[in-house]
Amino acid sequence: MTKLASTIRKDFSFICSRCFGEFKPSMARLVCENCKGPLVVKYLNIFQNENMESPFDSCEGFVSLGEGNTPIVKMDRLAERLNISEIFGKLEFLNPTGSFKDRGTAMMISLAKASKVSSLVEDSSGNAGSSVAAYCSKAGITAHIFVPKSAPQPKLDQISVYGAITHKIDGTREMVTEEASQFVDRNRLVYGAHKLSPYFLEGTKTFAYELVRQNQGTLPQHLIMPVGNGSLYVGAWLGFKEMIQKGMIERAPLMHAVQAENVRPIVNEFSGRNVAETALPTIAGGISVSNPPRSKQIIDILKETGGQAISVTEKAILKWQKIVAQDNGIYCEPTSAAAFAGLHQLTQNRFIVENESALVAITGFGLKDNLYI
Amino acid sequence: MTKLASTIRKDFSFICSRCFGEFKPSMARLVCENCKGPLVVKYLNIFQNENMESPFDSCEGFVSLGEGNTPIVKMDRLAERLNISEIFGKLEFLNPTGSFKDRGTAMMISLAKASKVSSLVEDSSGNAGSSVAAYCSKAGITAHIFVPKSAPQPKLDQISVYGAITHKIDGTREMVTEEASQFVDRNRLVYGAHKLSPYFLEGTKTFAYELVRQNQGTLPQHLIMPVGNGSLYVGAWLGFKEMIQKGMIERAPLMHAVQAENVRPIVNEFSGRNVAETALPTIAGGISVSNPPRSKQIIDILKETGGQAISVTEKAILKWQKIVAQDNGIYCEPTSAAAFAGLHQLTQNRFIVENESALVAITGFGLKDNLYI
Repeated sequence: MTKLASTIRKDFSFICSRCFGEFKPSMARLVCENCKGPLVVKYLNIFQNENMESPFDSCEGFVSLGEGNTPIVKMDRLAERLNISEIFGKLEFLNPTGSFKDRGTAMMISLAKASKVSSLVEDSSGNAGSSVAAYCSKAGITAHIFVPKSAPQPKLDQISVYGAITHKIDGTREMVTEEASQFVDRNRLVYGAHKLSPYFLEGTKTFAYELVRQNQGTLPQHLIMPVGNGSLYVGAWLGFKEMIQKGMIERAPLMHAVQAENVRPIVNEFSGRNVAETALPTIAGGISVSNPPRSKQIIDILKETGGQAISVTEKAILKWQKIVAQDNGIYCEPTSAAAFAGLHQLTQNRFIVENESALVAITGFGLKDNLYI
Repeated sequence: MTKLASTIRKDFSFICSRCFGEFKPSMARLVCENCKGPLVVKYLNIFQNENMESPFDSCEGFVSLGEGNTPIVKMDRLAERLNISEIFGKLEFLNPTGSFKDRGTAMMISLAKASKVSSLVEDSSGNAGSSVAAYCSKAGITAHIFVPKSAPQPKLDQISVYGAITHKIDGTREMVTEEASQFVDRNRLVYGAHKLSPYFLEGTKTFAYELVRQNQGTLPQHLIMPVGNGSLYVGAWLGFKEMIQKGMIERAPLMHAVQAENVRPIVNEFSGRNVAETALPTIAGGISVSNPPRSKQIIDILKETGGQAISVTEKAILKWQKIVAQDNGIYCEPTSAAAFAGLHQLTQNRFIVENESALVAITGFGLKDNLYI
């Protein structure tokens, strides 16, 4: 890769989340050279202030579309229904392209721009594809987005409206990734894979910092997220861990991961079921990930924070999408509704009890995925 | 109407914007008893602090879904294209239901709830319908939304997902309003007409206060908005006027109003053309209003601030929707794209020149209206 611009900090490296091998940071480096494990950013200096550690040492050159600072809404009628003290929803769908992905994309594309990348490849038919397309538009980077030919039209529309070049692949989701990867090699381009990029996680870290700031230092006891690749889940954890190191908070919330019953690799691994289940289709497109590259990290976080990994039925997802809209005025996509179905299960199993508080990350807008209404 | 709850201020009345007749505030009062003119809230006391005057004297009982605090994004590539100093977009589509309406609706429904309203009627097939449906859901109020049978399915879907009762009327837009009005009379319900409610404007006033706060007291020279009923335009002006009275700002920006050539009652009236033009269909659904009840107020504000009323072609609307998405990563609906087409015209006609700054209210999300992509 080309030389990093002057606004990029010099005191960080990439470290493998499996074998802890350490590498020089670069946009082109997505996995460990030794074991192919996914990487994270490691800062040499964690400053004892309340600023989030970031690969940038100033705002200059940061590509922003106004991501973050999403509202937290108290959901009283839901709390009453589930008989627990307080439920909050963090409206992550009020990010510029309609999903939480914008937090990670803003950071990833800012680094791409600072590294003088002119074309970037991503494979996603969903929220990440739109998000990367939008930020590349803002940054003046040509985006090549690889999608399955069968993807829903509204999602394809959103990707192309931002001016990205859409490559429609006739095949499975895995074949789409494979084609994208070959295209990267053939054309010597940068693969901005959000599910692997360590920079993407540095962006989603803002979720955790924001939560602490908005709650004036206190945190809900339980944090519930839908988990597919876990880019919000892992990023938020990195944020909490960093704030613990900085002495800003004592501990992270219990971080619960919700998956669809039809695609539940994390749930299986967490429960010790060593089964090779075939993934079935799910309406929760954002968590339809049968082989998440960061599964080891996700399992570690579940154990470290005392969170649960649970799976929910398609029927429950649809049911909770309705309840959240009709009782609480929030129109979320099925992937986010899964988190509420999960919250329901956690209260039923008494992992969350009467006097506790919970916050759900409402990751995507219902407007983006209204095929099931 | 029933007695107002204790969190409602006592020191305000409704005043007619035409004959200045003064009336006791009530959810059921939408026009002047004497001349049928539209009403606004008049406060007996304008306090000399930086808080917005509001019908509520505390946050208690306020029905919020996290509206407001929308990001302002600098649009450098657009500024370069139009050769003016600075262009900002205020992302009003990042309100909870995807449009600026939520500012007004939050206030209107909060008053409805405080006034113990249990059912409310609105007529709108667009952003206002979804917004009222969502806030009624949160407030536990039954919403009856009257819509044209021919309205696009995604809009009808969004209204019904919040649990509102949708009344599909086979007829013109005027017939929908008529049916809603008859339904109100027949069932002795409250008509929450956003285009008339003085409370709605008290909510959209937050736009102006927020702008001043986000800009730390300075304001862009030019403010450009799409104007149909003018509920954001008039509300923002009320905010600026109040802040002038409080000594917070010296003057309002030049407030420009953009309409579609196919439906341009304000443009005609402002230019003194006394023509009875027949409105034609426009893709800018949010400003397809041929007879805005607050037209006199809008004309007065244009004159008072030195703004222009301009109209733009369907072709220009589509063109600018693409440019804004492809150059700046912002996906807005055609109604908002009209404002950018208007900005272009204002620079061409040299109403806005090189060293000036402009801010565009990006009122609605492209996801809500993607039939033209």
